[in-house]
Amino acid sequence: MIDLFVLNPLSVRIFLMADKKKLDTSPYKGVRDFYPEDMYVLNYITSVMRKTAESFGYSEYGASPIEPAELYKAKSGEEIVSEQTYTFTDRGGREVTLRPEMTPTVARMVTAKKRELSFPLRWYSISNMFRYENPQKGRLREHYQLNMDIFGVSGLDAEAEIIETAWQMMKNFGAKDDDFQIRINSRLILDDIFSSIGIKDSEKTVLLKIIDKKDKISSDVFADSIKKIIGNRSNELLNLFEVNQRILDHLGTDNPNVKNLIGLIERLDSFGIKNIQYTPSLVRGFDYYTDIVFEIFDTSPENKRSLFGGGRYDDIFNLFGGDVIPAVGYGMGDVTIRDFLTEHGLMPEYKSNTDLFICQVSPVSTQEISFLASRLRASGINVAIDLSKRKIGDQIKNADKMMIPFIVCVGEEEIKNKIYKIKNLKSGKENALEEKEISNFIKTSGV
Amino acid sequence: MIDLFVLNPLSVRIFLMADKKKLDTSPYKGVRDFYPEDMYVLNYITSVMRKTAESFGYSEYGASPIEPAELYKAKSGEEIVSEQTYTFTDRGGREVTLRPEMTPTVARMVTAKKRELSFPLRWYSISNMFRYENPQKGRLREHYQLNMDIFGVSGLDAEAEIIETAWQMMKNFGAKDDDFQIRINSRLILDDIFSSIGIKDSEKTVLLKIIDKKDKISSDVFADSIKKIIGNRSNELLNLFEVNQRILDHLGTDNPNVKNLIGLIERLDSFGIKNIQYTPSLVRGFDYYTDIVFEIFDTSPENKRSLFGGGRYDDIFNLFGGDVIPAVGYGMGDVTIRDFLTEHGLMPEYKSNTDLFICQVSPVSTQEISFLASRLRASGINVAIDLSKRKIGDQIKNADKMMIPFIVCVGEEEIKNKIYKIKNLKSGKENALEEKEISNFIKTSGV
Repeated sequence: MIDLFVLNPLSVRIFLMADKKKLDTSPYKGVRDFYPEDMYVLNYITSVMRKTAESFGYSEYGASPIEPAELYKAKSGEEIVSEQTYTFTDRGGREVTLRPEMTPTVARMVTAKKRELSFPLRWYSISNMFRYENPQKGRLREHYQLNMDIFGVSGLDAEAEIIETAWQMMKNFGAKDDDFQIRINSRLILDDIFSSIGIKDSEKTVLLKIIDKKDKISSDVFADSIKKIIGNRSNELLNLFEVNQRILDHLGTDNPNVKNLIGLIERLDSFGIKNIQYTPSLVRGFDYYTDIVFEIFDTSPENKRSLFGGGRYDDIFNLFGGDVIPAVGYGMGDVTIRDFLTEHGLMPEYKSNTDLFICQVSPVSTQEISFLASRLRASGINVAIDLSKRKIGDQIKNADKMMIPFIVCVGEEEIKNKIYKIKNLKSGKENALEEKEISNFIKTSGV
Repeated sequence: MIDLFVLNPLSVRIFLMADKKKLDTSPYKGVRDFYPEDMYVLNYITSVMRKTAESFGYSEYGASPIEPAELYKAKSGEEIVSEQTYTFTDRGGREVTLRPEMTPTVARMVTAKKRELSFPLRWYSISNMFRYENPQKGRLREHYQLNMDIFGVSGLDAEAEIIETAWQMMKNFGAKDDDFQIRINSRLILDDIFSSIGIKDSEKTVLLKIIDKKDKISSDVFADSIKKIIGNRSNELLNLFEVNQRILDHLGTDNPNVKNLIGLIERLDSFGIKNIQYTPSLVRGFDYYTDIVFEIFDTSPENKRSLFGGGRYDDIFNLFGGDVIPAVGYGMGDVTIRDFLTEHGLMPEYKSNTDLFICQVSPVSTQEISFLASRLRASGINVAIDLSKRKIGDQIKNADKMMIPFIVCVGEEEIKNKIYKIKNLKSGKENALEEKEISNFIKTSGV
């Protein structure tokens, strides 16, 4: 409906459309329509995210999905953005991008008000992200994503808290500790290993790319790929990657990055978080993270995959020319979480938000029934009226189909006697109640 | 943060950006950043909308803002869309539009599942809309909009309910009856008037455009404009528009459209809705509405303007080649409502979602304090820890700046004695409590 734009030429054009050519009813490729049942699941997922985030003192922020394209431009000199983005030029000649992720936006917002904000700053948002790619399981062109970030804490207190929130999210979704694993690594430990065996900076990027794939390729392919890049230095590297502990032993417990990683794992362990796995091959993107990285991994045999992850990314504020602000965070998407909940039998059962459905028994007027409905709403319950004037049986079927828990049929007798039979559609049980008893009866029914 | 796309080339490019050229921290022109204080207001507005909609039995739905452009194409033959839309071609050659309003989307969704849905169908959504235009007061390039629609009811029961929900929305925002007016008209009454004085169909569109502007232009300009279109028939038309009642008298109370309008006004009056004004010049768009139209009008002298509106639009389903589905609805934008709340002193005061802030007194470890915080969260309150290791005075100032209502300073003594002084930052009052008393104390404090 148009609210702002009385007599807007747009509305004229839309509805003058000739009806010769019929419009398709499908949504755009790779995005979802949320019918009430789907919206119920999305609202469930976001409400668990919201509740958990706020329990740790995180405040919600938001921004428009339209951002200046330069926020995502490769290098300052280049004029292109990634082909996976929705980038276009607006009618005023501005190049814009539909945000593919939240981090550049939140860094922009924090920088803009750095002097007014209180640190440590704990922020979360639940926003939609857009990627142009071929839709497949777990990957759509639009998904909702929780972003949790803590700014201004340089020590491992930040990593410990952020990972605790991620663990608590999973618990609040009903996951058990053995349903998932928290994989942790330190990018700085990888750097130290590379230095110790003479890997050059120019070799690092492609090496990280191969290491990140370690669990997805055979050990032969892994070894061959490494050999191709660093020749005979590969023996030592492969030997180190054979057993996790070897890397830590190689650097020694005096190494500050090893100390930091072990300290973090011990801290989480002391919180009762036992499903932690040091994973030396975990990289999560190339140049994004500066130190600790982590990911939540689904351990079920049918769904073995990364659910979400994050890490420390202190350097992003350089983009805006400000000082470094220590930052740790993660993003958690609704599509992967929904898949996880489905695989593990944790999906909520759909429930209508409407408490009571009033069936209208002729000849009582809609007006009379509307009065009753208004009074019941004022007493705190959600009430819908059938309005169809169909047979009572059809009206009841309608309520049942909409999963509304209670119905009441209102005819002349009910209006006269002011006694209403409230029927629980699931159990079939009826209770004859006075009007003033109805709200409390429904609220305390546990349905 | 990237959750779905491990080793995605996008993330690489973003963070390789050379820091020579500093990025601007402003959002895109005409859209808003929502810092926590702004998000608080948006969440307040949407929660009132949501609560009111659900109290009438409306179910929430949603959809992606990216829609096929053809949904908004002028006529089937034409290849252009309105210049006020964001329309572009995706990388696969599909022409898409960022939705400027929700009605085409909801009509598409209802048509797609018409056979599975239960009618009367009551749906609402709270979604963002995009318009390319020059930002000004009350008009931005992106705004959030509540859409309320009832489908499948052809009589005035639908209009009565929809207008009752609009009135209830205003009441739930704290508005008094004399803060706003509900203006009502019937497009069919205008049609009957036009027929009765020999207005041709070809003259109708431009005539409606002038009538819609009646209250915004002088009566001389109004009369001249009308005369230019319909010559000497203008005398009768102008005479009718001089006094509202004349139009109804002219058609007579036997006219079915007059009957319908009067019936609707009487019905609303019987609900206790007294601030209704029959407004013959109300048009609200050209070809969108088929019968009753209405708008909520701000009556304050400083903000005299239409806040939002809607009406009956039965014919939209023709676009998809289906049967007509009776439909009545409206859209209510967050920007105009926010302005209304501000003008009328109805804005909510910002409150942090965090209940308790723990200040860390050296040498107690963060780990020790985190244990306490976790246990308090499990008891149902939202708890943040300072983590900055600054002086206590600075930590308290920080909590105050973030508007967190309660603080507790935790040092060795508190950990040993297990007694915590919970301080209300507003009143300055302190209460010494055991750990198990804290949650209940805060929950029942009324802060």
